[in-house]
Amino acid sequence: MRTIGFACTSAEAELAPAHFDRREARPNDVVMEILYCGVCHSDLHWARNDWGWTLYPAIPGHEIIGRVIEAGPDVTRHKVGDIVAVGCMVDSCQQCDQCHKGEEQLCREGNTGTYGGFDRVTKEYTLGGYSKHLVVREEFALKVPTGLDISKAAPLLCAGITTYSPLRTWNVGPGSRVGVIGLGGLGHMAVKLAAAMGASVTVLSRSDSKKHDALELGADSLLVSSDPEAMARSANAFDLIIDTVPVDHDINPYMPLLDVDGTLVIVGQVGPIAAPSTVPLLLGRRRIAGSPIGGLKQTQELLDFCARKNILPDVEMICMDEINHAFTRMEKADVHYRFVIDMASLQAA
Amino acid sequence: MRTIGFACTSAEAELAPAHFDRREARPNDVVMEILYCGVCHSDLHWARNDWGWTLYPAIPGHEIIGRVIEAGPDVTRHKVGDIVAVGCMVDSCQQCDQCHKGEEQLCREGNTGTYGGFDRVTKEYTLGGYSKHLVVREEFALKVPTGLDISKAAPLLCAGITTYSPLRTWNVGPGSRVGVIGLGGLGHMAVKLAAAMGASVTVLSRSDSKKHDALELGADSLLVSSDPEAMARSANAFDLIIDTVPVDHDINPYMPLLDVDGTLVIVGQVGPIAAPSTVPLLLGRRRIAGSPIGGLKQTQELLDFCARKNILPDVEMICMDEINHAFTRMEKADVHYRFVIDMASLQAA
Repeated sequence: MRTIGFACTSAEAELAPAHFDRREARPNDVVMEILYCGVCHSDLHWARNDWGWTLYPAIPGHEIIGRVIEAGPDVTRHKVGDIVAVGCMVDSCQQCDQCHKGEEQLCREGNTGTYGGFDRVTKEYTLGGYSKHLVVREEFALKVPTGLDISKAAPLLCAGITTYSPLRTWNVGPGSRVGVIGLGGLGHMAVKLAAAMGASVTVLSRSDSKKHDALELGADSLLVSSDPEAMARSANAFDLIIDTVPVDHDINPYMPLLDVDGTLVIVGQVGPIAAPSTVPLLLGRRRIAGSPIGGLKQTQELLDFCARKNILPDVEMICMDEINHAFTRMEKADVHYRFVIDMASLQAA
Repeated sequence: MRTIGFACTSAEAELAPAHFDRREARPNDVVMEILYCGVCHSDLHWARNDWGWTLYPAIPGHEIIGRVIEAGPDVTRHKVGDIVAVGCMVDSCQQCDQCHKGEEQLCREGNTGTYGGFDRVTKEYTLGGYSKHLVVREEFALKVPTGLDISKAAPLLCAGITTYSPLRTWNVGPGSRVGVIGLGGLGHMAVKLAAAMGASVTVLSRSDSKKHDALELGADSLLVSSDPEAMARSANAFDLIIDTVPVDHDINPYMPLLDVDGTLVIVGQVGPIAAPSTVPLLLGRRRIAGSPIGGLKQTQELLDFCARKNILPDVEMICMDEINHAFTRMEKADVHYRFVIDMASLQAA
């Protein structure tokens, strides 16, 4: 189908309106009119080809909320008019052990990215949610529960699930002591979600300038990571640290903060991190891990949890044609805490 | 008590005979005549001050088998004549949560090292097992089960428990797929122990020159880590990789070998490792961990397991005065797989 989006044509180009074709809907597809799309730091990396594998023209966007406007004859989960959500993936093999466990993000054949992937049937290059419409296999469209404010919920599909999943993997609940490094799109969701699970939550920040915000989001305290005495007093103070920093950085100062068998889980940086010392690993049987988004089942669980607990990202709504300015602000960490594009603005663009 | 040992007086000096005083036995101590002492790579690091915190004169040795020749009035676990074993620690606070869990190696106050520590009562500097006698708190002397060949068992106290403990922490058993990097003192024990637990075991080695030895030790196969095709074919092939390499090295080539949620556990290198990429961590929710020896309860479990399964380190027996030559050979990895000092040779030295 013919539709419109905001595309970039090279690593240097700004995003600009572009008409393009979505693949024809198959019997098990739904066609969505996109209502809102969150702006993830990955979108910026992708548009700028920071990881080196972007093909152009590219359309970012993988935090998508929309309305079903067409449902194929084999579709059983959704009907026209339903509000649905799509995150970072639009397909997977559905045959392997990981897909069978509901961990499609870890599909043995690799999941199909919402952008930057290749449709498993037609091999067409996938294009993301900065656009008016999306055609997607019904399983990969999640149900948005009534009561979840759809103008704010989009970031749950990436920032939300990326932090929710490790909290669940490492069994966070009442009694858990969780540290969060980085108070951006992911970090602010980690704080809200961990607090809602009953954990004691501490934001780790270079200064105490974010203390008020951290407490407002639900944290119990803020630990100033540039204060050696405060850091020393916090030795063994955490069971889990969620590290949302999206660039190369040094995790060594944080490792002694973990208690015995504690884990620092990286969810931000994609690429190298500074050489770690094994000493804090050995002395406390501590662990370093990574965690990628979450599966469909867990993402649905997250949406339902957020509706029940009234948890929403803090967002700043923008129009589609403000995206380039938003990217610039995001690079300066000037956003509290996530931009969401009101896709109604695209028609006018 | 007055006794004799082999001590080094500086980082450059060779080990040489030295008379010295052990602390006076307290009511809850046993006095051991040391019969055998294993030679650990840490002994060499310690003697040479590679970690920068050695005080001299220093006496290494923390894989100790001996006979009780005196038992204090409060001793209930051992009696004169018993064969007992002492590993890397001789005391801990016995009051904290870790000590209460039998994880004295992770004592909140720090355990007292068999060498290089300070006695918790007298503050005397502790001296290791390259000596004729040892005075030790009874809890830290383990029972050597009948049937365990005491001339070979000493390396179980460090090389053994250091590899046994992570196998237990990560629940290795039938169906587990375990990789072992490095086929030295620790690595050969990791192979034997993992195989005895019912796991499928693969030795990872730069060439296939160790294949025969690996299979003899109980491995199912050897994977040549310098062969890119073999490495690619082994993607996701392991649940746990035990990395015994005792120097700075690059773990990145090994990470994709781990299956989803798999762990590479470092037990060799103390210090930095080359900068890891987060990509394999993120893509497979993989983990990097460290693991230090094991607690008293688990070390006793290991000794009993080895007696029951007839598992012994492969050792080369040396006399005390061969230690400097043994260190030189150990630096060239010229040992299959552990030196053990016959302490009967010390009297003659």
